[in-house]
Amino acid sequence: MGGLSSLFAPDRVAVVGATERPGSVGRALVENLADFDGDVVPVNPNYETVCGLPTKDNLSDTSADLAVVVVPAPAVLDVVREAGEAGVRNVVVISAGFGEAGGEGAARERDLVELAEEYDLNVVGPNSLGIIGTPVGLNATFAPRSAPTGSISFLSQSGAFVTAVLDWAADHGVGFKDVVSLGNKAVLDEADFVASWGEDEGTDVIVGYLESVEDGRRFVEVAREVTPETPVVVVKSGRTEAGAQAASSHTGAMAGQDRAAAAGFREAGVVRVDTVQELFDAARVLAGQPVPETDGVAVVTNAGGPGVMATDAVGDAALSLATFDDGTVDRLREHLPEGANVYNPVDVIGDADTERMCTAVDAVLDDDAVGSAVVIAAPTATLDYDDLAAAVADLQARHGVPVTTCLMGGERARQAEGALDAAGIPNYFDPARAVGSLDTLSEYRQVRERGGAEPTTYDVDHEAARDVLDQARERGATRLGVEAMPLLDAYGIPTPAGEVVDSPVDALAVAERLGDPVVMKIVSPDILHKSDIGGVKVGVPHEEVYDAFEDLITRARNYQPDATILGVQIQEMVETESGVETIVGTNRDPQFGPLVLFGLGGVFVEVMEDTALRLAPLAESEAEAMLDEIQAAPLLSGARGRDPVDRAAVAETLARLSQLVTDFPAILELDVNPLVARPDGVLAVDLRLTLDPDTL
Amino acid sequence: MGGLSSLFAPDRVAVVGATERPGSVGRALVENLADFDGDVVPVNPNYETVCGLPTKDNLSDTSADLAVVVVPAPAVLDVVREAGEAGVRNVVVISAGFGEAGGEGAARERDLVELAEEYDLNVVGPNSLGIIGTPVGLNATFAPRSAPTGSISFLSQSGAFVTAVLDWAADHGVGFKDVVSLGNKAVLDEADFVASWGEDEGTDVIVGYLESVEDGRRFVEVAREVTPETPVVVVKSGRTEAGAQAASSHTGAMAGQDRAAAAGFREAGVVRVDTVQELFDAARVLAGQPVPETDGVAVVTNAGGPGVMATDAVGDAALSLATFDDGTVDRLREHLPEGANVYNPVDVIGDADTERMCTAVDAVLDDDAVGSAVVIAAPTATLDYDDLAAAVADLQARHGVPVTTCLMGGERARQAEGALDAAGIPNYFDPARAVGSLDTLSEYRQVRERGGAEPTTYDVDHEAARDVLDQARERGATRLGVEAMPLLDAYGIPTPAGEVVDSPVDALAVAERLGDPVVMKIVSPDILHKSDIGGVKVGVPHEEVYDAFEDLITRARNYQPDATILGVQIQEMVETESGVETIVGTNRDPQFGPLVLFGLGGVFVEVMEDTALRLAPLAESEAEAMLDEIQAAPLLSGARGRDPVDRAAVAETLARLSQLVTDFPAILELDVNPLVARPDGVLAVDLRLTLDPDTL
Repeated sequence: MGGLSSLFAPDRVAVVGATERPGSVGRALVENLADFDGDVVPVNPNYETVCGLPTKDNLSDTSADLAVVVVPAPAVLDVVREAGEAGVRNVVVISAGFGEAGGEGAARERDLVELAEEYDLNVVGPNSLGIIGTPVGLNATFAPRSAPTGSISFLSQSGAFVTAVLDWAADHGVGFKDVVSLGNKAVLDEADFVASWGEDEGTDVIVGYLESVEDGRRFVEVAREVTPETPVVVVKSGRTEAGAQAASSHTGAMAGQDRAAAAGFREAGVVRVDTVQELFDAARVLAGQPVPETDGVAVVTNAGGPGVMATDAVGDAALSLATFDDGTVDRLREHLPEGANVYNPVDVIGDADTERMCTAVDAVLDDDAVGSAVVIAAPTATLDYDDLAAAVADLQARHGVPVTTCLMGGERARQAEGALDAAGIPNYFDPARAVGSLDTLSEYRQVRERGGAEPTTYDVDHEAARDVLDQARERGATRLGVEAMPLLDAYGIPTPAGEVVDSPVDALAVAERLGDPVVMKIVSPDILHKSDIGGVKVGVPHEEVYDAFEDLITRARNYQPDATILGVQIQEMVETESGVETIVGTNRDPQFGPLVLFGLGGVFVEVMEDTALRLAPLAESEAEAMLDEIQAAPLLSGARGRDPVDRAAVAETLARLSQLVTDFPAILELDVNPLVARPDGVLAVDLRLTLDPDTL
Repeated sequence: MGGLSSLFAPDRVAVVGATERPGSVGRALVENLADFDGDVVPVNPNYETVCGLPTKDNLSDTSADLAVVVVPAPAVLDVVREAGEAGVRNVVVISAGFGEAGGEGAARERDLVELAEEYDLNVVGPNSLGIIGTPVGLNATFAPRSAPTGSISFLSQSGAFVTAVLDWAADHGVGFKDVVSLGNKAVLDEADFVASWGEDEGTDVIVGYLESVEDGRRFVEVAREVTPETPVVVVKSGRTEAGAQAASSHTGAMAGQDRAAAAGFREAGVVRVDTVQELFDAARVLAGQPVPETDGVAVVTNAGGPGVMATDAVGDAALSLATFDDGTVDRLREHLPEGANVYNPVDVIGDADTERMCTAVDAVLDDDAVGSAVVIAAPTATLDYDDLAAAVADLQARHGVPVTTCLMGGERARQAEGALDAAGIPNYFDPARAVGSLDTLSEYRQVRERGGAEPTTYDVDHEAARDVLDQARERGATRLGVEAMPLLDAYGIPTPAGEVVDSPVDALAVAERLGDPVVMKIVSPDILHKSDIGGVKVGVPHEEVYDAFEDLITRARNYQPDATILGVQIQEMVETESGVETIVGTNRDPQFGPLVLFGLGGVFVEVMEDTALRLAPLAESEAEAMLDEIQAAPLLSGARGRDPVDRAAVAETLARLSQLVTDFPAILELDVNPLVARPDGVLAVDLRLTLDPDTL
């Protein structure tokens, strides 16, 4: 899809449906193309000229390499076919009346997709505001204002949001390379643009507003390649239940589970933010500043109070206040007056001039413990903001260490912002925002450092696992329980010794092999909550095994007379006292595919909702990160006087399970509950899974 | 302290230490007073005039009612005494060199406090930037810029922050009534100004930047009276550990435990925010908009995407999307074109003009389910922002329902903001900020509605409790355990039947009375962690009581040969299976006084840190709120198939304990762990407390 670069930098643009009618979209498009470096050809048989430009009757007469289509919906398909026939590979469909309208429109959209495939066309939209490519002066939108030039490329599922951002950007030091309003995403979606901009020299940062992700798996695969080189920042709205409902009614897009999207963005290395302000704060700093080498932040201020606010913000973020080395402290002590604070946060005191401020900034930027710095100033008689801005910009460039500033104030701060903007240094009144920008850089550094942690692949008995599923298929079973434990055995996940038997005599025989006492469980695909009907007996001594077998069968029959009963599982007793009960589960998101969940058993998952979620398959290192992510993590590491559990074994189990569900798409959901984690390993004590009857 | 109104609106101001020297603070002060409605008298025997104003040699010659003091620190005390003698009751000490300088300065500050008491003076500072009273044009600061006029009164522990805010405010639609830079808070502190502004007609909102709270208890008492009438919004920095360290080094103020401050602000009805942006966002909306009657929010937008963002923000906040009644939906359907969304969020579609937008806004503001509304617009050819701003301001005023707006864009939005500012309607580019402002209003509504929930007072046996503490005092004990259970009995908190005995014979006699088996615990002030040394035996049958007694004594002796052993407690067995183990604790914050903590036992408090904290004494209703505040709250209400516990009994126990620690300041810390909460009541099973030897 490297062809998308030509989309934003065509030689000749045809506007099909251009008109002279005042206030029309067809006219606005032609007017907005006035600054285009190439040729603009209005296409409309009813006009000789539009906005002074001679028209053509048909697209095929234009020799255009980009067609912008604004004809009424019913006429769009003919135009697109004409584009295909004439070899116009890039088409932007502004016209509405497609999928978003339902019914006939949805059918029309399907036809559009087919045409695009038939002719191998890059189609933006339909229902798009258009596209912008600032290097060639292309504003192929009907927005009232184009984009200031810069290195941010911007995709948006909302056309109105593009309009608003363009209007706002010019005043706020935000400049763009390419912009696309995705519209209905019938053909080209977010993944295509991320892939294309990832290879684009002119794009330093990719910014997106999304309400849905068209194909989550593909997006992740594409973005994962791009993000180590080019940061991608996304607001995905429809985060909350209320928001998701609004999003669905707005674009007709299915709002995928938001946590699945979060896991997907994480895997892809996408920086996800929640608000518009955060989106452009992140974009500005990523476009303007280098990536820090450590999380240590230096604060230099001429005012104590704002310095404390910045320090609070450092504490709130995933950053730390850098501890200066002795040389730095000595240097600061030498140059700063008595009463100054030569430790972090450095307070140069209120009577400081630009030179004193900058001596301090220079010293801290020299310190290896300083990954980034925030320079804070309150207005004083001795400090000239213009001088300070220029000097800080110079120091930042010289040291190559990322800097944000907080030159507090009104008019005087706005003036100084020119020099800072030019140096790519974001300036905010609020110290928390200046620090927040540094936090974004640190978050992105982790994306870079993580690199390509490939999923861990284990040597497993794929055939044995397939056998278990085949047997289920033969039985017509879609819900499996402990009888499917061999599935775990096949994937190298430790399970207690045990066997399913169908007679009391066999039960006793197995029990005698397993030790005394044993655990006995009814095995039936129709009884999901075994405990609730007394279908699980723990600590059954050998002399009671016979009766217990009969009792379990009776209970099952009483509960559901027509239940399929596969037998009774006899399992060795698992000593759980020294262990922690964990839950390892998997499910499938329609957009992002198989997911793996980890949490502690019982109240921790159900009441505290304390879980970690990732896309499958998993690297073992990522599985370890899941263990640390839950709030109850200290319980795995020996909190409250317990022995630490075998974390590596838990992580390995997560990764092995993730391989299992990746290998067998038929497994829709799977819960190992509990997975008992002990100091000397793990044991999967119980299992439940649901199979997709169609994939079986 | 009603006298503070005269501080901000004096008739005649003397500037003691005024000079002509360019760049000096003494000159800047006189220059800044140029617009003062009253008289300004520079005091300096070395000048005839300062800035054209005739000087006096001494403060006592000036007939001033406000003295602003900028003489060098060693000369300040003489000037203050002169003020006292001359009847100048209001004094602002700009001079530094007091507590913040340590040593001699600290002694000087103590003398200043004594002088203020002796003469009953209102002293601001020392080390203050000064004060501003906009109604009389008073700028008694050395800040380069005064404050725009408005109804926000502003106190700040950082002078630099005042300077920065003043510089910024004029451009951002924020106006002030009174402003004070608190300086070292030697005499007047935040509580004094909150109290005074609470009675001030011209102050609609009180805004504060604090690094410490001088006297937490007094602040809470004062603010609690003020907040139901006048909202108080505070940033207290030093929130995080790093921030607290920076705060201490900055002002020498002790950073109290931040959670204690949070509990104090909550009790006081103070709206606490974390950042400067939030501070002024909150101030603007509280000053400009009325308090909503419900949490239901209506969203009206001409653009789907931003509507979804706003809806997400509603979901993030403690707000809900209002469900319109049928009449509203009908009205919207009648007036909006096909394709519009007539449910919340209302989407009037991109071709809407001002009239259509406003028809929708009018309809939703009429709906009783709508407590507040956010109006969102992206720039379009059909919508004029100036018209829209004026119309929305008019509708807001007519309906009396709070509104914020999000007219997205640059220049065109800035122009429209004039009309919105004038109507007190905050406008933001980011829908999340517009919604956040409505959330602030709802938070404040709760402050109003809560009203004055008085602490619940129970009929208790104060004498019996005193006896327990007296006995401890006689023994010289400062750490008490189960032997102090009668303390709980005296305050009506249920405890298991039990008795401390000092012989195995007595042990058996008591056990026979309590039932079989019993619990036995070693009782020693020197052994805090009884369980760790095997000092607790649960389920001891009668035949083993004798031996168990001897064993417990032996274990204690082995553990610590010189331990004071008070005996062995024989306690009835408490059935805990049907209950939930909770922890109820108290401690004392140096600034905010006695605090009560609630959480679930074990990992919930220690690992998950899932606790609720309040100031003692407590109203029972507030204690109930603590139960709901913890994340594990569902476990008290019957989660996971358990019976719900007796929440009222838990809340009552919290309130009774809060009364106990309020009645006896000698109790520094007290833990009831566990307090077993069962469906039919509670039982305090174990107790540990620390006494203050000085207060005993």
